[in-house]
Amino acid sequence: MDFRRRIDALQARMEQAGVDLVCLTRGANLFYLTGIRRPLEHGTDHNAYGDWASIALVGRRDGVVVLAPRMGGSFYSEEAQGKPWVREVRLILESEDPAAVLRSAVQAVAGSPRRVALDERLWARTALELRQFLPEATFSLASDLMAPLRMIKDEEEIAAMRRAAALADQVFEAVARQLVPGVTELEVALEIERQFALLGAEYTSFETGVFFIGGGEPGREGTTRSSTGRRLRHGDSVMFDFGCVLDGYCSDFGRCAFVGEPPEEYRRVHALVLQAQAEAMSAMRAGQVTAAEVNAIARRVIEEAGYGEGFTHRLGHGIGVTVHEPPYLDVVDQTVLQANMTFTVEPSVVVPGRFGNRVEDVVLVTERGGQSLNRAPHNLVIVG
Amino acid sequence: MDFRRRIDALQARMEQAGVDLVCLTRGANLFYLTGIRRPLEHGTDHNAYGDWASIALVGRRDGVVVLAPRMGGSFYSEEAQGKPWVREVRLILESEDPAAVLRSAVQAVAGSPRRVALDERLWARTALELRQFLPEATFSLASDLMAPLRMIKDEEEIAAMRRAAALADQVFEAVARQLVPGVTELEVALEIERQFALLGAEYTSFETGVFFIGGGEPGREGTTRSSTGRRLRHGDSVMFDFGCVLDGYCSDFGRCAFVGEPPEEYRRVHALVLQAQAEAMSAMRAGQVTAAEVNAIARRVIEEAGYGEGFTHRLGHGIGVTVHEPPYLDVVDQTVLQANMTFTVEPSVVVPGRFGNRVEDVVLVTERGGQSLNRAPHNLVIVG
Repeated sequence: MDFRRRIDALQARMEQAGVDLVCLTRGANLFYLTGIRRPLEHGTDHNAYGDWASIALVGRRDGVVVLAPRMGGSFYSEEAQGKPWVREVRLILESEDPAAVLRSAVQAVAGSPRRVALDERLWARTALELRQFLPEATFSLASDLMAPLRMIKDEEEIAAMRRAAALADQVFEAVARQLVPGVTELEVALEIERQFALLGAEYTSFETGVFFIGGGEPGREGTTRSSTGRRLRHGDSVMFDFGCVLDGYCSDFGRCAFVGEPPEEYRRVHALVLQAQAEAMSAMRAGQVTAAEVNAIARRVIEEAGYGEGFTHRLGHGIGVTVHEPPYLDVVDQTVLQANMTFTVEPSVVVPGRFGNRVEDVVLVTERGGQSLNRAPHNLVIVG
Repeated sequence: MDFRRRIDALQARMEQAGVDLVCLTRGANLFYLTGIRRPLEHGTDHNAYGDWASIALVGRRDGVVVLAPRMGGSFYSEEAQGKPWVREVRLILESEDPAAVLRSAVQAVAGSPRRVALDERLWARTALELRQFLPEATFSLASDLMAPLRMIKDEEEIAAMRRAAALADQVFEAVARQLVPGVTELEVALEIERQFALLGAEYTSFETGVFFIGGGEPGREGTTRSSTGRRLRHGDSVMFDFGCVLDGYCSDFGRCAFVGEPPEEYRRVHALVLQAQAEAMSAMRAGQVTAAEVNAIARRVIEEAGYGEGFTHRLGHGIGVTVHEPPYLDVVDQTVLQANMTFTVEPSVVVPGRFGNRVEDVVLVTERGGQSLNRAPHNLVIVG
């Protein structure tokens, strides 16, 4: 990936916008700019000495300076090796005042910055500290500068996303064969996660979803783990929703299955979901349509067939170094689609207690419409 | 858990400190106050419409108001059922301006608050927005109010932590039996995670660590996944470091093993690590010692035996609804230990390429010293 070009592009936008300093968390934007990977978040807050001051700083010129806690910080030192666009990884020692380290790093990178852009998820504690020692500065959001850069993927990014999509295809093929009556949602989800890990994924891109629906059971939400101990039975429909992070880029994938001979209505709904996806994808021509219009096209197909109430979510979302990123295929996003944007396109119809059907691909916007980065066939998997 | 008492205690502290409004993320402090669970974080940022404005508000009186994105927000509505101390879960719709929803919720809870306390990890975007529409307000950190409450565990919390510790003991017993030459670190780690999930844990409390050390290989850090494809061999030492979240409370556990007959030096180091842990624990008498002194006691044992360079981290950390929380058994924390504080006590000696040895228990501070909440024996597991 051409990280120097990305840093140059950000610094050009900083110049235009009059921003003197960009402060990033050790997250998605930092990975995008430098290639420094993101460790998996812990189940609960993970606290290290000085972590609140551990951010990355980008000034108008030169490379990126990363502050990291000494405990765990060697990860960042190692990540920075071979990356001369990372000027320094400065570890915050237990013998130091993190606020003082932060202050002197800001000064070294940007002097007394007048306009500072903050990562949306920078900690409030850090933001309050920055405000206190830069009382004259005005603050804005780093996403205003970075989101437009990240929306349009270059060839290397598209190749990385194809690899992440291929891994999801491969895991689905293996796991679909293991669907047998009696298995639980959770067991299938754990198998998906195990396969991703053994195939070299960094981690899943979101919580793995395996949903068995049928037999009159009410829909269950509200669990911290989407997949439950519910066992697969004859007559169930199965919805998959999973993805991985590979080389820093995300996949997000959906297909469905049925145990036994599917009723006529379920086959009809599956065809409807595929039609909604296909019509949306063929409309996704660069420069020709807004995100909201694409959402409306798929929704209309499902509504006109009388299943509008079963399609409860947006059609899709931008995807790249984060699993959900702008633009969004929802009711409000008026962004005009451009070539080399990448979106999930994921229509679904769920009738609680009766059945669920969904399909999801990662789709590249081209002049001729949307192209799926996935290869897994869209047909209904029949179990047993 | 007596959530009403916790909210009352926070509001009493707000009164004392003159704080009119506390703004929390949907995280650890909110769980502690209300019992609303925390979904697992995604591998990369997960974005929903309005998520930046989705915080919880606590005023001087009445219950907690939670703002959540419509997409995924039903989780919070369901979590709030049967919890009358949660006054409202307000979903932010795609048809609304999240900033306007946030503003009117703040006004309903606290009027025009003059002093506002923010969760340390509240998003900078939210903090900037709050500052903009409350230009007269001063801001401080919610942790100043909440950390002292959370440090001292009540009987129900201690019981929950015993259950989380027992689950770690149980998983270790099962997994230790499966250690065989040829297995990879990653396979063992995945088995630990699978067992936790099947036994009802919400998720792991941090990244599962399985480390095979021996045979002259240099230590490897810098991977996003701690556990690698390294295979277990005769003459290896094995260090475990893992834990789970059960009913909202964390465990954090460590033991070690050796493949084949351990050399004399390894047995001596194991005894040394156990001695360091035992001396630290017996010093952990309520009111009698500071966190830094406990750290120093264990460190001295290891240093005097000549292995100080192999013990590279703090002795331990507070643990409860988060896996690492104040106070910390490190060089700087001067907190005097009090009854019913809970800490990990986790000395280790690692000689890169040669061997590693560690032991970790969750320890309750009592008048008579520290008591382990774990039951797993401390002896070295001998494999093969």
